[in-house]
Amino acid sequence: MKAFMDADFMLSNEVGKKLYHEYAENMPIYDYHCHISPKMIYENYQFANIGELMLGGDHYKWRVMLSNGVEEKYIRGDADWLEKWKAFAGSLKYCIGNPMFHWTHLELQRVFGITDILSEETAEDIWNRANAMLATEEFRARGLIEKFNVKVICTTDDPVDNLEYQIAMAKEKSSFKVYPAWRPDKVINIDRVGFTDYIKRLSEVSEIDCSTIENLIKALEKRVDYFHANGSRLSDHALDTVPYGTPDIKAAGETLAKALRGEALTAAEVEGYKTFVLVELAKMYKARGWAQQYHIGAMRNCNPRMFAQYGADVGFDSIDDTCIAENLAKLLAAEEATGNLPRTILYCLNPKDNYVIGTMLGNFQGEGIPGKIQFGSGWWFCDQKYGMRDQMESLAALGLLGRFVGMLTDSRSFISYPRHEYFRRILCNMIGEWVENGEYPLDYKVLGELVQGICYNNAVNYFDMKVD
Amino acid sequence: MKAFMDADFMLSNEVGKKLYHEYAENMPIYDYHCHISPKMIYENYQFANIGELMLGGDHYKWRVMLSNGVEEKYIRGDADWLEKWKAFAGSLKYCIGNPMFHWTHLELQRVFGITDILSEETAEDIWNRANAMLATEEFRARGLIEKFNVKVICTTDDPVDNLEYQIAMAKEKSSFKVYPAWRPDKVINIDRVGFTDYIKRLSEVSEIDCSTIENLIKALEKRVDYFHANGSRLSDHALDTVPYGTPDIKAAGETLAKALRGEALTAAEVEGYKTFVLVELAKMYKARGWAQQYHIGAMRNCNPRMFAQYGADVGFDSIDDTCIAENLAKLLAAEEATGNLPRTILYCLNPKDNYVIGTMLGNFQGEGIPGKIQFGSGWWFCDQKYGMRDQMESLAALGLLGRFVGMLTDSRSFISYPRHEYFRRILCNMIGEWVENGEYPLDYKVLGELVQGICYNNAVNYFDMKVD
Amino acid sequence: MKAFMDADFMLSNEVGKKLYHEYAENMPIYDYHCHISPKMIYENYQFANIGELMLGGDHYKWRVMLSNGVEEKYIRGDADWLEKWKAFAGSLKYCIGNPMFHWTHLELQRVFGITDILSEETAEDIWNRANAMLATEEFRARGLIEKFNVKVICTTDDPVDNLEYQIAMAKEKSSFKVYPAWRPDKVINIDRVGFTDYIKRLSEVSEIDCSTIENLIKALEKRVDYFHANGSRLSDHALDTVPYGTPDIKAAGETLAKALRGEALTAAEVEGYKTFVLVELAKMYKARGWAQQYHIGAMRNCNPRMFAQYGADVGFDSIDDTCIAENLAKLLAAEEATGNLPRTILYCLNPKDNYVIGTMLGNFQGEGIPGKIQFGSGWWFCDQKYGMRDQMESLAALGLLGRFVGMLTDSRSFISYPRHEYFRRILCNMIGEWVENGEYPLDYKVLGELVQGICYNNAVNYFDMKVD
Repeated sequence: MKAFMDADFMLSNEVGKKLYHEYAENMPIYDYHCHISPKMIYENYQFANIGELMLGGDHYKWRVMLSNGVEEKYIRGDADWLEKWKAFAGSLKYCIGNPMFHWTHLELQRVFGITDILSEETAEDIWNRANAMLATEEFRARGLIEKFNVKVICTTDDPVDNLEYQIAMAKEKSSFKVYPAWRPDKVINIDRVGFTDYIKRLSEVSEIDCSTIENLIKALEKRVDYFHANGSRLSDHALDTVPYGTPDIKAAGETLAKALRGEALTAAEVEGYKTFVLVELAKMYKARGWAQQYHIGAMRNCNPRMFAQYGADVGFDSIDDTCIAENLAKLLAAEEATGNLPRTILYCLNPKDNYVIGTMLGNFQGEGIPGKIQFGSGWWFCDQKYGMRDQMESLAALGLLGRFVGMLTDSRSFISYPRHEYFRRILCNMIGEWVENGEYPLDYKVLGELVQGICYNNAVNYFDMKVD
Repeated sequence: MKAFMDADFMLSNEVGKKLYHEYAENMPIYDYHCHISPKMIYENYQFANIGELMLGGDHYKWRVMLSNGVEEKYIRGDADWLEKWKAFAGSLKYCIGNPMFHWTHLELQRVFGITDILSEETAEDIWNRANAMLATEEFRARGLIEKFNVKVICTTDDPVDNLEYQIAMAKEKSSFKVYPAWRPDKVINIDRVGFTDYIKRLSEVSEIDCSTIENLIKALEKRVDYFHANGSRLSDHALDTVPYGTPDIKAAGETLAKALRGEALTAAEVEGYKTFVLVELAKMYKARGWAQQYHIGAMRNCNPRMFAQYGADVGFDSIDDTCIAENLAKLLAAEEATGNLPRTILYCLNPKDNYVIGTMLGNFQGEGIPGKIQFGSGWWFCDQKYGMRDQMESLAALGLLGRFVGMLTDSRSFISYPRHEYFRRILCNMIGEWVENGEYPLDYKVLGELVQGICYNNAVNYFDMKVD
Repeated sequence: MKAFMDADFMLSNEVGKKLYHEYAENMPIYDYHCHISPKMIYENYQFANIGELMLGGDHYKWRVMLSNGVEEKYIRGDADWLEKWKAFAGSLKYCIGNPMFHWTHLELQRVFGITDILSEETAEDIWNRANAMLATEEFRARGLIEKFNVKVICTTDDPVDNLEYQIAMAKEKSSFKVYPAWRPDKVINIDRVGFTDYIKRLSEVSEIDCSTIENLIKALEKRVDYFHANGSRLSDHALDTVPYGTPDIKAAGETLAKALRGEALTAAEVEGYKTFVLVELAKMYKARGWAQQYHIGAMRNCNPRMFAQYGADVGFDSIDDTCIAENLAKLLAAEEATGNLPRTILYCLNPKDNYVIGTMLGNFQGEGIPGKIQFGSGWWFCDQKYGMRDQMESLAALGLLGRFVGMLTDSRSFISYPRHEYFRRILCNMIGEWVENGEYPLDYKVLGELVQGICYNNAVNYFDMKVD
């Protein structure tokens, strides 16, 4: 029997242990997609206590507490951080088999060197010990990042953002780079509340009147260039469901005009507009050597009462199950047909789509780029033992695992880097199993190259963003 | 190598064995959803032979026989019970990897103490030995239930049922409670043959003329109160696909009137009516502290020729694959928005929906109730090793396994209680694996509490139905 | 730790090893569905080199190379075979966890007795050794087939094919039979380019003017009889998505007329026509004791640029995800309702459909035929360790694994027979696991009968095609 979360956590075979400890463990981190605040990085934020650090903004943990019957006061309410911390600690034992149990203890171990089990009984002692450390310089935002040998962080930024903190960071000495990433969801989501206001804002920021589709595209290109000039080489799209309608500038222009006049749009108009803008953006990305990310399958803000009270991204999202294959094939084909399909990473939130994505890749590979089209790592609800293993087995069985660009945190937390460790352990264990079962040759030169590629090197080669 | 189905059946690790034998094995059974006959319980039915006991009404076994090429005469036809028993016995060896092989042998072992393998060769000897036991008092219906330490049975009852047998049982001394459960499918399924007749019957029983939607709701509430007065605290809905249309009393009323006039309804009218009635019922359940169950994903009566000959529930159903996420989210939101969402158990028959359900829960948790929204245990076709394990892994990875209300038989058979044992073995084995793999602390106080919760205590706390 | 791909490859338990080596390994092969060229069999084709043998026409391997960033020149282009062979060899190490790694090495081992790992370093040496063997008589097309103890090969043939090579083969002495199989996709796909020309061709070949639906059916029946007279007892349909519309001869006739006039068809017209023709064909199959195969879930020719350049079946297909349950149930019911449902094998390409198919079977079993409706083996993208295991676990859990007709190659390659070995190893390992875990009795008489049934005997009994 193995001890709880020891050095060989998640590693149950000798080849896997060797691969992890000798090849994977010390590789740097290339965190190409996350949601941490560039302001907090730049200002080197100091957390008041472990409650704020671990629970502040983390809707994963809020969800655990709500599911456990914890009162709202201790979740998103006005209880103090210690009370909230205890409420979380008391919920944790019910998370048996949940990644929260592992993430939390990995964070305690790797950030603070605390190996205790967090529970109601230990909550206050851990609170005291961790807070003492958090009060020091070493545990400010940048120090936390440096602990994990992070080389690149890509933040998530709106086309209207001025990127001031990334620009400021670029001027500083730092062991890691902070690059912006372009997330133009608000310009795509023509059917959502706030679209008109957003277009106004985009017009201001770009100094181009976006009331025609031609100008809107021009404005986007100007902003893409601004992002590019400030280091961005990566976009991200929360597609949720995959739109498709024949991309046509005239129809898209009319739809835009209707939306700006406040008129209701048909589903076909919305799909056509979205497709047109996505195809135009892909062209811009391709021309500049960017990669694009499509995140597919989230169903957001499912609890209207909570949405009215708290807004988005507070823990009331779940997994959608619409069909995606046909539209996704057509969307990518529309980009490919004119030679404008950039490097693309496809993520699915619903594991039922693993085989659709895993085989879609092969339809659009090419240009002499190894793994040009990527199957993105297990994400959000799938960022756990089963989800990551399923994604990797599917990718391996259907495509080239050896060319995978690997893990990213996709997190709002400054201490979620142990998820890279979690991923690497699962990866090495899986490969070790195959080798010990006689399914792949025992050749550490090859195995080490593959593992280090998936941990770090493949991302370095895939993305056009410099690492020191 | 382990012996066939010995004391450690399905238990392949030491922690799992200890958890099962010391914590789970002797817990009582809270069977909160089944289809056994309250009349047969009350009248303490005596089975003529093991053929009638095991094959009578059990469409699972009929399906096995039909799939094996057995003639209809020996399935639903007029062959005698011994001939049928032999035909079943001869089919069993082909069920390698099928739960039928395990259920049957668990039943032979636990009910009769027979450890032989059932086959063509052993069929007659087992027939004789089992029948001798069945002829005794101990093996009448109530005795069979008592053998398994059952504390609660919830039957499945129509709103027009008079619950006479549950009422009669409540007056008797018994080691187990028999509570009715409310299953109003016939009032929801406005698009099915027989709806008009059913509404007539409901009008008679409730003494309220159900030809208007206002009265229909009143009649339902009157019957809910009748069920409540007779111990019911639980409803069940076979949604099959999940309906959604904006719930609106006026539209629902017009749809009802159209249906009662025998006019054809549009899909939108059907969806709107169903949603309205479901939301109204949820309100009633909430007000009375009931739980509701939604069973999603069955496709029923797929063989028209067999349906014409035998009617429903005889083995010609299968798994549907429609999209459920959007409608389910909207339906629950409609109930939640007005504060009328009761405790709810969501079951999916198609494992492709496990992640949809597993994450849907979190959207609607709350009110300080641990696990208010539950992911129902692997059901029907999923009530087997892989289905149960997948459901539990999904629940664990996406929600709180520790708050799970666990297993139910959902069976038409008086000897299906070993399925609780089957479930418990799989549960303990899974948790044991995690612990032995260093993924959860080895602390039997916590582990025992979690296991006993999932086996029995969580259900006792969750449902508002007394246990002696 | 096991050696790479040794005698016990994929076998990790003792029961599984014994089942494989003593029961499965030496069973003949009944390859009831493949795409190899009857002309090449008849003419006993001699391959110029291992490049042509392994890479010629094999879109699986082309896809691997494209995904690895290999230039088109070395894939479908004009590089010479040695260059292509080296490009493939250099890509192979990235296929860790991909069936290509195993298939390739199984082919090297079983065809050539070469146990080296194929890589950039070994490519030329293997090229030389293999080519020396390929230059001998023993390694011509028929010799390759004979190496694998193949007893039956069913090719894939169009209704207009004259079957000259199968007819010629039938006159020769051979250790294996070559039977045609009927694949009438072109007559079903009324909505595809080329339909009108195809109908013209069918009219010529059948000598019946197919411009009316009555005549079209007559012509098909005439061709079915021609296939029957030449040994065919099996059809195959690439349904991709499952059509359903009420089958009606008048409507189907009008749709056919519209199509032949070059008018656009509605989706409903297409579905109705397809359903009508499928139901009529099923009737013909049933009357002649044929089996039919439905292949469901492919999405083909997804890359328009590559389709324009190379046409179909060159590696740009992927997995679809439409809902199939309702239409499939209705289609089979339409065939069953009139007593005209033949033996049917249902294949799904998307594993999300495994439980839909696995339970659909049971709706339509009968006629005293063991396993009349079959769940087809893991196919194309699912023809790998996880896909095959998932299909078998689903079949076992939901139906009768013991009645399964087992593996087929579905391949365009003359040396893909080791996939039968791969399947048998996975099968025996799975059953061995169950037995060693106490889930099925250790009785080699029964186990051996089941395994040999699934490997070969069940297919012999199921299909009405003679084996010497």
